[in-house]
Amino acid sequence: MDLALDEARAAADRGEVPVGAVVADANGSVLARTGNRTLELRDPTAHAEILALRAAAAALGSERLIDCDLYVTLEPCAMCAGAISFARIRRLYFGAGDPKGGAVEHGPRFFSQPTCHHAPEIYGGIGETASSSLLRDFFAARR
Amino acid sequence: MDLALDEARAAADRGEVPVGAVVADANGSVLARTGNRTLELRDPTAHAEILALRAAAAALGSERLIDCDLYVTLEPCAMCAGAISFARIRRLYFGAGDPKGGAVEHGPRFFSQPTCHHAPEIYGGIGETASSSLLRDFFAARR
Repeated sequence: MDLALDEARAAADRGEVPVGAVVADANGSVLARTGNRTLELRDPTAHAEILALRAAAAALGSERLIDCDLYVTLEPCAMCAGAISFARIRRLYFGAGDPKGGAVEHGPRFFSQPTCHHAPEIYGGIGETASSSLLRDFFAARR
Repeated sequence: MDLALDEARAAADRGEVPVGAVVADANGSVLARTGNRTLELRDPTAHAEILALRAAAAALGSERLIDCDLYVTLEPCAMCAGAISFARIRRLYFGAGDPKGGAVEHGPRFFSQPTCHHAPEIYGGIGETASSSLLRDFFAARR
């Protein structure tokens, strides 16, 4: 999660909402690490999780990331939760909860739906304080 | 929707689950048209809708597709519904409903959640028969 927090800080420095994500394989080796780039790439899908999942899939040459884990500093939204499910992520570790846009513990609670065909093991609140501080400082500076 | 159905047929010919999508601007001009390419691109996020939204955003140079409409042959999943919301799509036209994985009329019903910040106007069942036939024939041929 420390690497994901570094990526979130780097995203803030680029003017992006500070969210970072890392995909690691079963041995803990990092396959992909990146931050939110929706503005830079002018791509509404370029959340940290989506970019990290795509990069990890490219690295492995497979659309399924079997036995891989995702670390992300913020509770994933519905788009990212769906992608995590399609990618067959083994364990999801996330930092701060997101009552406004999260889809794991909030809103659609995607992984609890009967139409969700693969749910990872889920561990929330990892690095929550650091992640929340980053987001709070980022939005405070824009007001 | 005829163009989206053509893209779905092309996807089937490539061995992909036959779903096609088109993004059109306010004047009805096509900004992007494509089909599902999860296997070809080895990318778990490469659903027709995601690829079409990304291509349209690249064409416009903006992560927001203001006043643009999306035509897709199958009810979008949670991942794609989230992306449609982030892209600020004006109208969503879809073909067949998807009780197993859809997230518009089924499962998480994403656009009805209080945590959904932008919902398009939604028109389902457009070209439903043709879309359903394509999907049925595709899966029948694999059994």
